[in-house]
Amino acid sequence: MSVTGPAGFRAAGIAAGIKDAGNKDLALVVNDGPQQAAAGVFTTNKVKAAPVLWSQQVLQERKLRAVVLNSGCANACTGPGGFQDTHATAEKVADVLGVGAIEIAVCSTGLIGERLPMDALLPGVDTAAGALDAGGQAGLDAASAVLTTDSMAKQAHHAHDDGWSVGGFAKGAGMLAPNMATMLSVLTTDAAISGDDLDDALRSATAVTFDRLDVDGGTSTNDTVLVLASGASGTQVDKAEFTRVLTETCQDLVRQLQDDSEGATKTIDITVRGAVSEADAVTIGRVVAEDNLVKTAMFGSDPNWGRIAMALGRAQAEIDVDKVAIATNGVTLYADGATAADRAEADLSGRHIEILIDLGLGEHTATILSTDLSHGYVEENSAYSS
Amino acid sequence: MSVTGPAGFRAAGIAAGIKDAGNKDLALVVNDGPQQAAAGVFTTNKVKAAPVLWSQQVLQERKLRAVVLNSGCANACTGPGGFQDTHATAEKVADVLGVGAIEIAVCSTGLIGERLPMDALLPGVDTAAGALDAGGQAGLDAASAVLTTDSMAKQAHHAHDDGWSVGGFAKGAGMLAPNMATMLSVLTTDAAISGDDLDDALRSATAVTFDRLDVDGGTSTNDTVLVLASGASGTQVDKAEFTRVLTETCQDLVRQLQDDSEGATKTIDITVRGAVSEADAVTIGRVVAEDNLVKTAMFGSDPNWGRIAMALGRAQAEIDVDKVAIATNGVTLYADGATAADRAEADLSGRHIEILIDLGLGEHTATILSTDLSHGYVEENSAYSS
Repeated sequence: MSVTGPAGFRAAGIAAGIKDAGNKDLALVVNDGPQQAAAGVFTTNKVKAAPVLWSQQVLQERKLRAVVLNSGCANACTGPGGFQDTHATAEKVADVLGVGAIEIAVCSTGLIGERLPMDALLPGVDTAAGALDAGGQAGLDAASAVLTTDSMAKQAHHAHDDGWSVGGFAKGAGMLAPNMATMLSVLTTDAAISGDDLDDALRSATAVTFDRLDVDGGTSTNDTVLVLASGASGTQVDKAEFTRVLTETCQDLVRQLQDDSEGATKTIDITVRGAVSEADAVTIGRVVAEDNLVKTAMFGSDPNWGRIAMALGRAQAEIDVDKVAIATNGVTLYADGATAADRAEADLSGRHIEILIDLGLGEHTATILSTDLSHGYVEENSAYSS
Repeated sequence: MSVTGPAGFRAAGIAAGIKDAGNKDLALVVNDGPQQAAAGVFTTNKVKAAPVLWSQQVLQERKLRAVVLNSGCANACTGPGGFQDTHATAEKVADVLGVGAIEIAVCSTGLIGERLPMDALLPGVDTAAGALDAGGQAGLDAASAVLTTDSMAKQAHHAHDDGWSVGGFAKGAGMLAPNMATMLSVLTTDAAISGDDLDDALRSATAVTFDRLDVDGGTSTNDTVLVLASGASGTQVDKAEFTRVLTETCQDLVRQLQDDSEGATKTIDITVRGAVSEADAVTIGRVVAEDNLVKTAMFGSDPNWGRIAMALGRAQAEIDVDKVAIATNGVTLYADGATAADRAEADLSGRHIEILIDLGLGEHTATILSTDLSHGYVEENSAYSS
């Protein structure tokens, strides 16, 4: 179950012919109400794709009737013509649904610098509209139609005891981080909640979930997370409680993204504690997560903590090297300024690795989710354009 | 010719048994004067190896009689005991040469977190002192004794018409950047120059040479560049002219480091021009140089400029995406906000690739030297601890 889990939503995912291979490449998610509150967070990259510029604009109203998403083309770095294509896509969806284009968000993912094949996309909107359905298969179809180098669809659905739920899908396998790279996610809820509260909840949730996934430091031109609220459960939710369930749902999707990222043979959780601020903990976690020498050591199952020490030492954060402790998979290898245990004592042969860095300076903690750097990553990103 | 090119210097490189494989691992460079001016620049990493802490201290006097260097062990993250080892190394060299330990700089490179085998190193100093010689072979021996994963020694010697010259060697093949990672270099000159002028010249030269090499974003705990002036040519040099020749010598060594970096199948020069400041140009060049998606595309000889656009858009620098132009190997692929030429027109099949990013905003330029991300890099950094 994903976006069609909560009441009030229909979805579809079809093959419009945007991708050469004939795979599903166009998704629609429609909010049938009774409410249409919505919120979005977008890439921090200064180079923003046309659909990001469009969706940021329409989201100012905090109201969406539908989202249309395509894979196979990012529609980024495509100039005024590319923006026109996004606008025409929104107009087409609006026509078919009998609403205004200002109520339609657009998301695209795929190769940068190519124009959308509108002669395939526009008829595809008709096909998708005809396939709209509130069932689980329709949700899966939509989740499948946004995939690029992902190996499987990522879906989540978290229900609350009070009769409402949050559902969603996400895609993204490379160019992941910081702050949601090559990542699209659509979340839905049948909770009744105002647009402003929805916006607050989404920013709070993504800050500790999508924003803490860092596979390769890449931040895409197209990153978008949208949440749509139908109010169909009839339950007016507590904002804190809603934020908790939304955060859980996001984290569920983020774990799936981490596990399926390009070429990953290891999932690596880097926890930094004892920092003087949460920002410092995040900064250090990111530098370690993005360090190719740490990532290749992890690929080799080598508890080479010297590379972790090197990486954290170059972070723009407060560090006292004599107070730092570094552990991998529960074994403290470095403490009090020197080697604490033989590296052979830490077994990193499994798929999951925990790196714990205790700075010994303060009370703040953050965990960054990452992966190793493998031959598969190099192969996937050198052999094909993406 | 390297450090023994200029008059007034002797060098040696021997196998002391620090490395298991029996390769050369201990080098000595001695300045016989008549002057002993010296200057150094060191890693910006907050985690500094014991020899860096020691050498920074002795360099405050701007005077060095000799440098002792070892490979096979970084002596980093080794606590007070590690610092004692460095001190004892300097004392031993000082004893053998009949000078004070305060005139001896120490450099180490190799695995982090291991203690130096002092029972091999100290007798090695005697052997090295006995092998000291002013000839070219001795310079090559010293250049060879500092290598780790390098495939060959890097030497340079640039002579000035006025009868003085600058020579040097460097090592470093991974953990390269920003600001001279896992990189050791010793430069010598027979010019007569004050310690203060030598320091200015070295900072000026490294800022546009060693600091502009960025292979993998790694900044080592041990980076050191030292320059020693003997004054043996008898020529008091013009500071600007000396800085020019020193910069040429550094650049010569940097090109050799770039070409020999771990797993590199491509050398990539990233020139950013039209920036509002030189700092912005450097920042953007570094982000592109360190981006794994750009690096893997280059490995695949793929002019995937969309990844370059994505990377520069996430740099903390002033950018107007509609004014940016991106060219690879002379073919402008992106300009005026959209595709400017089919990517197939740019041939990246050769070993050297030029990326030109014109920001169209100002007058400032910088070039960052980098390499691709290959299977060889992953193999070299996952299969062995280093």
